[in-house]
Amino acid sequence: MNEFVAPVALEKAYRLLNHGPTVLVSAHHAGVDNVMAAAWACALDFSPPKLTVVLDKIAKTRELIEHSGLFVIQVPTAGQVDLTHQLGTVSLFDEAQKLARSGVELFRQEGFALPFVSGCSAWLACRVIPEPHNQATYDLFIGEVVAAWADTRVFKDGHWHFETADPALRSLHYIAGGQFYAIGESLIATGQGKQ
Amino acid sequence: MNEFVAPVALEKAYRLLNHGPTVLVSAHHAGVDNVMAAAWACALDFSPPKLTVVLDKIAKTRELIEHSGLFVIQVPTAGQVDLTHQLGTVSLFDEAQKLARSGVELFRQEGFALPFVSGCSAWLACRVIPEPHNQATYDLFIGEVVAAWADTRVFKDGHWHFETADPALRSLHYIAGGQFYAIGESLIATGQGKQ
Repeated sequence: MNEFVAPVALEKAYRLLNHGPTVLVSAHHAGVDNVMAAAWACALDFSPPKLTVVLDKIAKTRELIEHSGLFVIQVPTAGQVDLTHQLGTVSLFDEAQKLARSGVELFRQEGFALPFVSGCSAWLACRVIPEPHNQATYDLFIGEVVAAWADTRVFKDGHWHFETADPALRSLHYIAGGQFYAIGESLIATGQGKQ
Repeated sequence: MNEFVAPVALEKAYRLLNHGPTVLVSAHHAGVDNVMAAAWACALDFSPPKLTVVLDKIAKTRELIEHSGLFVIQVPTAGQVDLTHQLGTVSLFDEAQKLARSGVELFRQEGFALPFVSGCSAWLACRVIPEPHNQATYDLFIGEVVAAWADTRVFKDGHWHFETADPALRSLHYIAGGQFYAIGESLIATGQGKQ
């Protein structure tokens, strides 16, 4: 955790995911930490904030989450593109030194038995809302966001500031085969629309 | 439909949504067409391709989908930012002339009783996989993608080409209050990661 990490009000937490970034999912159980990448995470509700994330049965992180009922969704940055891809393509089931070899740095937040990934731009601590049918049939997990934080250099006062922050802090949006897009320019809609 | 619209193989259809764009959701029932914007749509499976979309109970489009069991998820472009915001903030329940006033243009695809929005970059025709508990509790709908198309100027050979296409064809990623981001530059991960 660094000096730029600040809490985000829960009613604004959906904005951390609203633009559809690829995320890192981290969890802890019985002395084991793990982190995986996931392109299929999505906001589900405003208040209390909820989200969905798809966790394949081959993922060790899913096993940790099924035991602990807790996970972190965090938004990695353009500067972490190699780390993100590696965390998404190597499994702790196959490679016991996955985290050490990836070079990922973890930190703790007081009151949460969860690993948080250093250098991300936003973090959402979640508890699983058990939905066994969704989990078994679709690998679909629903989480309630119980706390959120962001790096104030790129998310402040309830809004992202990608257009004025260091480009290395832009969010990542995965396609396939190691190819991502960074988020781009800000566009403001005009006309009859209301918030 | 224009000369640039071409089918996308179903096993590549997830890539149309993988980077988390804001989408337009369209549907038809009993002579009524409607289109709404949704930031909360997400890929769910590769093959057969499935997706999730959150549809509030106040949305007329949801009512049409509940009757017909069919909908289209389409990816609007930076050039459609005002249209997208308007379709996301005005309801057909409140404004009977919503579509006419928005200026949205619809087209048909042979074999589908569905309205498709002209000028988008990708279209996924879906049938609802009924999950009454998810729909009632979370406003969460699951669709199986039964056909997909893209504008070959920006999606071709299974990949987006935002970096070389007209910037007006970039995808939109909504935050709040009429503010969107366009998708940005392409980043290729290097290192130990495999596809």
